[in-house]
Amino acid sequence: MGVGSRSLFVGTLVHSKSLEELEYLEDIAVFVDENGVIAAIQTKYSKATTEEVDAIFQKLGWAREDVVVKTAKNGEFFFPGFIDTHIHASQYANAGIFGKTTLMDWLNTYTFPMEASLSDAFKAKTVYSRVIQRTISHGTTTAAYYATISVPSTNLLADLCLSFGQRAFIGRCCMDTMAPDFYKDESPASAIADTRATIAHITNIDPKHALVTPIITPRFAVSCTSKLLHGLGALQKETDLPVQTHISENKNEIKLVKELFPDHSSYTHVYDGHGLLGPKTILAHAVHLSEEEVDLVKIREAKISHCPASNSAITSGTAKVRMMLDKGLQIGLGTDMSGGYSPSILEAAKQAHLVSRHVAMEGDDNTKLSVEEVLFLATKGGSQVVGLSDKIGSFGVGMEWDAQLISLGSAADPVEEGLGSVDVFGWESWEEKMAKWLFGGDDRNTLAVWVKGRLVHERKI
Amino acid sequence: MGVGSRSLFVGTLVHSKSLEELEYLEDIAVFVDENGVIAAIQTKYSKATTEEVDAIFQKLGWAREDVVVKTAKNGEFFFPGFIDTHIHASQYANAGIFGKTTLMDWLNTYTFPMEASLSDAFKAKTVYSRVIQRTISHGTTTAAYYATISVPSTNLLADLCLSFGQRAFIGRCCMDTMAPDFYKDESPASAIADTRATIAHITNIDPKHALVTPIITPRFAVSCTSKLLHGLGALQKETDLPVQTHISENKNEIKLVKELFPDHSSYTHVYDGHGLLGPKTILAHAVHLSEEEVDLVKIREAKISHCPASNSAITSGTAKVRMMLDKGLQIGLGTDMSGGYSPSILEAAKQAHLVSRHVAMEGDDNTKLSVEEVLFLATKGGSQVVGLSDKIGSFGVGMEWDAQLISLGSAADPVEEGLGSVDVFGWESWEEKMAKWLFGGDDRNTLAVWVKGRLVHERKI
Repeated sequence: MGVGSRSLFVGTLVHSKSLEELEYLEDIAVFVDENGVIAAIQTKYSKATTEEVDAIFQKLGWAREDVVVKTAKNGEFFFPGFIDTHIHASQYANAGIFGKTTLMDWLNTYTFPMEASLSDAFKAKTVYSRVIQRTISHGTTTAAYYATISVPSTNLLADLCLSFGQRAFIGRCCMDTMAPDFYKDESPASAIADTRATIAHITNIDPKHALVTPIITPRFAVSCTSKLLHGLGALQKETDLPVQTHISENKNEIKLVKELFPDHSSYTHVYDGHGLLGPKTILAHAVHLSEEEVDLVKIREAKISHCPASNSAITSGTAKVRMMLDKGLQIGLGTDMSGGYSPSILEAAKQAHLVSRHVAMEGDDNTKLSVEEVLFLATKGGSQVVGLSDKIGSFGVGMEWDAQLISLGSAADPVEEGLGSVDVFGWESWEEKMAKWLFGGDDRNTLAVWVKGRLVHERKI
Repeated sequence: MGVGSRSLFVGTLVHSKSLEELEYLEDIAVFVDENGVIAAIQTKYSKATTEEVDAIFQKLGWAREDVVVKTAKNGEFFFPGFIDTHIHASQYANAGIFGKTTLMDWLNTYTFPMEASLSDAFKAKTVYSRVIQRTISHGTTTAAYYATISVPSTNLLADLCLSFGQRAFIGRCCMDTMAPDFYKDESPASAIADTRATIAHITNIDPKHALVTPIITPRFAVSCTSKLLHGLGALQKETDLPVQTHISENKNEIKLVKELFPDHSSYTHVYDGHGLLGPKTILAHAVHLSEEEVDLVKIREAKISHCPASNSAITSGTAKVRMMLDKGLQIGLGTDMSGGYSPSILEAAKQAHLVSRHVAMEGDDNTKLSVEEVLFLATKGGSQVVGLSDKIGSFGVGMEWDAQLISLGSAADPVEEGLGSVDVFGWESWEEKMAKWLFGGDDRNTLAVWVKGRLVHERKI
């Protein structure tokens, strides 16, 4: 089922109908064209007459023999691919290693040395190949990646995403101050020139950015001079490319930003004042944003990447997701490896559920997120954050087939083998099965993954 | 490698030397006798001469041909079996299903109906068989189980633990008030008579409680009358059996206990006043204990089962583990399924690490637990809690071989198969490998499990 084949996916589809509600569509056939676009959806497929199915083929101008058919077995379901809105590909080899650090000492102890070491092209290829394959195996069909400051290493990440077939945003880290000498941009001008070089490379290998898109990446306000931020803001205006950065992750960081940018009234205003806060901006973390800052984010239509595993692991704090949702922000999930310890957006969704309960412990029970809500953030919410909600994140005619086939284990299978640690006993409702998947599932439950209709992963059982 | 064989385990051993420190013992041979007891440990085994090894065999009176040899491959290691100090076997089928509930509505919505339904012997056998096999597959060699109020169902759980070879404490739930009519002890007398019946059964099938031990189980102060608590306190004095119960999990529960037992100055004093707070008492949760209560627990030498996954999932609060450790309490980990969502003590250890960071967010950075500390709680700490630290939880001559063989995946293996989601690149230190296991590992990394020297689980790769 390589690039360019027409496909028919048959079985149950589950996706987010709204923030609060999952839709369970049983007995469906999805017709996906050679470009990975959903051309037609037939309901009650098993009840359809030969004539009705023939009519679809005729309307599409397809022959039955051209189509590769993938049927989900009883109990299996197709689910939108996960969207990781914040992940540092270059830190993957450190996943799980963070000791007792918090943000600023974590950067210096673990992160900068690891990122700098990826100027070694072979090491970069090893780590990047692995993180792409690993995240795909966990169902991630789209990832917004931070690479390193190195142009060749950043370009390599883009090449590899194209080759493995993962939809990706690729950002070269810009950082011209408050960084170690061995890992720092020489000047604002060089940072911008290097960013342009990666944009040119990516546009060369994928001219329409159909799969891989460059993303302008000021690391965070602390590590960028005002001159660099202004330059990147201007570059955004010139290119209309997306932007990604970090915001308000840790209290000491916020204090430092206040000291470094005394003319701006908040962290959010720093980005806004440099032309970097717009509808195509992905702000990672947003743990300690004031309500006033949230209002500004809303006005600018900037997006939030919630990274709960990271926020707990390096003791950053608990993001107020319900508050931000209530104010109308669009929010997705990020693994933030290796501040986060896991390549899995399913784990991020689980942690979002748990962290929302830690927020509730502070007093407001309404802050709790449901299973349905965190799975929305993992898919549809993520598609809004990366600006692709018309193409991915849910299923519909005209959208692209970025999907995973999920199967949950049966309590009747031997524990020594099989589909992971989820036990379905047979009496569970759909809602209960989704809860069991969220809390007990892992990459074993993701049997296969498609991006733009192309099969990019298949689990050997 | 069935019951009664002599075994030789060769390779790397890792276990807790202290709360803060893991010991990495490479090139070791462990001689385990037909009763599962470690008879001798040889260091620098690969360097030992034939004469030196012969001398050990001679001293033990063993012949080389009597011994089954299991060698850990390069990169693999033997680790003590996990000890789950708090788990409701009867709630396993609900793992992951808890909605937005907190303790009291969770009990009525999900828990009591599920437990009551296990009066159906076939359903009980299905669920209990699965939870035992599943927890073993996650490396749990000892579990302190709550069953249900039903005598036959409780006895069945004991039979199955003996049959599958898991070391277990089996408690029949006592609850004669504040429970639904369909699931409640008729009277204090009947609750005690039923408890005696399960004690008699377990003593009949395992006279020395070598593997399975009865444990006196008042569900919690809310669901027991004072008369029942007094009766169970007397039963403990008579039998010297261990006791398990819940304490101070949820603020509404604490308030209710205060109302129900106005003559006692705290939740802890309720158990103390009924003869139920002693060195053999396991107190689950202890989320909101005052320092004064902790002091009383310390004086009585009662033990704590910390259940972080559950405490986050049903919004109970964050247990102050560092404070309790500093005051000298002995603490282990509990999955608390299905308040907790996972059968895995490795997941409980990971959550203990994360929850300690949520405590730190409240102000005191010293509360953070390290990788080494949570793995201590999962093994050695657990052995103290269940009163078996002279037998299990770490390795030493005279102790019993309750162990798991761990293997971490290599970044060189295909992601479609292999040993789970941990990627070891080859440059990691032992400390970093343990961190990767804790944060990315799962049951796939547990290749084999032994209890008292008997192989009880082996993963098919």
